[in-house]
Amino acid sequence: MARFGGLPRGGVNRQALSAEEGRARRQLAAWAAEQGFTVATDAVANLFIRREGSDPTLPPVLAGSHIDSQPTGGRFDGVYGVLAAFEVLQALNEAGVVTRRAVEAVAWTNEEGSRFQPGCLGSGAFAGRIPPGPALEAVDRDGIRAADALEAMLAAEPDFARRPIGFPVHAYLEAHIEQGPLLEQAGVPIGVVTGVQGSRWFAIEVTGEEAHAGTTPVRLRKDALVSAVAMVEALRQIMVDPEDLVRFTVGRFEVHPGAPNTVPGRVFFTIDFRHPDGHTLKRLGDQVEAVVRAHAGSCAVRIEETFTSQPCVFDAGAVAAVRDAVAGLGLPSLTLASGANHDARFLAEVCPAAMIFVPCERGISHNEAENAAPGDLAAGARVLAEAVVALANS
Amino acid sequence: MARFGGLPRGGVNRQALSAEEGRARRQLAAWAAEQGFTVATDAVANLFIRREGSDPTLPPVLAGSHIDSQPTGGRFDGVYGVLAAFEVLQALNEAGVVTRRAVEAVAWTNEEGSRFQPGCLGSGAFAGRIPPGPALEAVDRDGIRAADALEAMLAAEPDFARRPIGFPVHAYLEAHIEQGPLLEQAGVPIGVVTGVQGSRWFAIEVTGEEAHAGTTPVRLRKDALVSAVAMVEALRQIMVDPEDLVRFTVGRFEVHPGAPNTVPGRVFFTIDFRHPDGHTLKRLGDQVEAVVRAHAGSCAVRIEETFTSQPCVFDAGAVAAVRDAVAGLGLPSLTLASGANHDARFLAEVCPAAMIFVPCERGISHNEAENAAPGDLAAGARVLAEAVVALANS
Repeated sequence: MARFGGLPRGGVNRQALSAEEGRARRQLAAWAAEQGFTVATDAVANLFIRREGSDPTLPPVLAGSHIDSQPTGGRFDGVYGVLAAFEVLQALNEAGVVTRRAVEAVAWTNEEGSRFQPGCLGSGAFAGRIPPGPALEAVDRDGIRAADALEAMLAAEPDFARRPIGFPVHAYLEAHIEQGPLLEQAGVPIGVVTGVQGSRWFAIEVTGEEAHAGTTPVRLRKDALVSAVAMVEALRQIMVDPEDLVRFTVGRFEVHPGAPNTVPGRVFFTIDFRHPDGHTLKRLGDQVEAVVRAHAGSCAVRIEETFTSQPCVFDAGAVAAVRDAVAGLGLPSLTLASGANHDARFLAEVCPAAMIFVPCERGISHNEAENAAPGDLAAGARVLAEAVVALANS
Repeated sequence: MARFGGLPRGGVNRQALSAEEGRARRQLAAWAAEQGFTVATDAVANLFIRREGSDPTLPPVLAGSHIDSQPTGGRFDGVYGVLAAFEVLQALNEAGVVTRRAVEAVAWTNEEGSRFQPGCLGSGAFAGRIPPGPALEAVDRDGIRAADALEAMLAAEPDFARRPIGFPVHAYLEAHIEQGPLLEQAGVPIGVVTGVQGSRWFAIEVTGEEAHAGTTPVRLRKDALVSAVAMVEALRQIMVDPEDLVRFTVGRFEVHPGAPNTVPGRVFFTIDFRHPDGHTLKRLGDQVEAVVRAHAGSCAVRIEETFTSQPCVFDAGAVAAVRDAVAGLGLPSLTLASGANHDARFLAEVCPAAMIFVPCERGISHNEAENAAPGDLAAGARVLAEAVVALANS
């Protein structure tokens, strides 16, 4: 799969609804045909590969992720979950296992959102949370509309059955590289993912007054940097967390005019705050404005909350299916919330959903250097297989 | 004078050794001729306007400043001191005062250093502290060498007498706008300047590691911004000064890569630290490296002291002459050190020197908005006259 959109340094550029993604989908369909699986798509090009169950009338169990990538993405983000699901279907064939419910491997359209915004279009539309009409009006850097790219993709796949968007699903499981360092640090191959943490982003503008660094005494300064530094220090204090679950990051911090001998007149900085627990997200996030204002000193301050997403807590039964599979296989594991967003977040809105993480090297992702160990990837696929079969027979 | 290089918004662009400066010098020479003063220059185009004393063999008292400006400079910085000195000479003529020593108004070449670096070329060369040869190899933005601009200037002034660089001077006084807010805040027209504060500049580079803001726990982060903020806060603590003489400024603070959801991997910031007392400059400046290293946390740090200048303390006798003049005129005054550098700093190396400050509006300088009140400018010129006469008769 890494050859479709493969890059010289080992990564991939396989963006949503691109020709590269089309060739990857065609490869998946060819493998499906070899195994006797049926292939279907829907109006937003979500791709479903179905292995029939003993009772075709029951809602299926879905497992998958996405195969689109960042422009300089890695070989594992997304596509690992789709291939792991496909291997589950193939292994069931090879082992002659009959499941009560059908099992489907799924590739959701445009999870990354790097070519067309917003991301998670396929899973969001499937779950009824993203209206596809407006989203498909998005235009890429070359001026191509998402709707036109989608039409071209679907026109090239007349042999795929067509389904309506959204249908009853018994459960959804998604295997994915962690995109963080925790599993590697803990030295375990499996993460049992209990949900996706919530986020609150803020933009802070501190306005003071430019002044001569050599001649202006402190009592007459309105030093925007001094105020901003005090704000960041104070915010760090309230964000101290012995559990180390709080994610608090000041990633942009711009100082104007930026001359060594001029007292800064303006600072702009961002806060990226995340937490898996909704109450903590609210409690700490709600303190940001007061703490910032308390440390404004002689400066004026403008605070904007630019983005909010509530934490998602996965269904206990779906998480238990993953945990039981891990236990049955005797694998070491860590229980954690996902730091990044995933399609499972939208599926969780319409069915029991959970995720399985595997370690990735140094936590690096969205980067050609992204890497994962074959043994860990295999362990994740085995956990997925056990959990999928259990859910498909429930 | 503000018409020579005058700008639409009220400021001036009269850079060193430019045609605009040449026309301003010609105007000064014309006024000098009307008064019967002699005009001389030297190999770096310092301009001397001499009113003879009763004993022409004694070293003269010099008073002046510079007439070059920043590219978008104000109408007062430098030229005020030259015109105040010229008005002293003119007033002595009109009042029929005979002084024992000659009194000369002087305009030093290229104080600003904005067209050709370094600045204070004229006074530095006069004091034997800046060798003119290397300095005149400097090239401006249009590729013009300082040596060529100087040659053109001198060639256009064949009627000015030529002197050697540097000659015995009895005392030097310089009137200047404060370029800071203290006099305006105190509501006094005169600052008695006791010296020029010293400076120590540092460049700090903090290197951590970029990481995903959503997935990387604090214990695994090497957050360059967190370390840099802690450094700035700690430095501010050691720089706290009830007297409010410490000037500590972080003016540049650059964060890389500067994405809201990426833990910063690198921060570069500058420290501009100034103090009028050499011991304090050393004591606090010497602590910078230890404090920075103590707060590096998980990051690496590189510290460079990029510029050092020792404080200059003006001769007590010259300062007393200013103070006596202020007292004699019954003017309210403030005693202070200069925050910015001036030609007087170099003259202080070869003769008793002091300065007289007058308030400027909101401390603004190096800016077309630079402004000063006519009454304050006149008060400064009166103090200069009294002090010059006292020194010229001593």
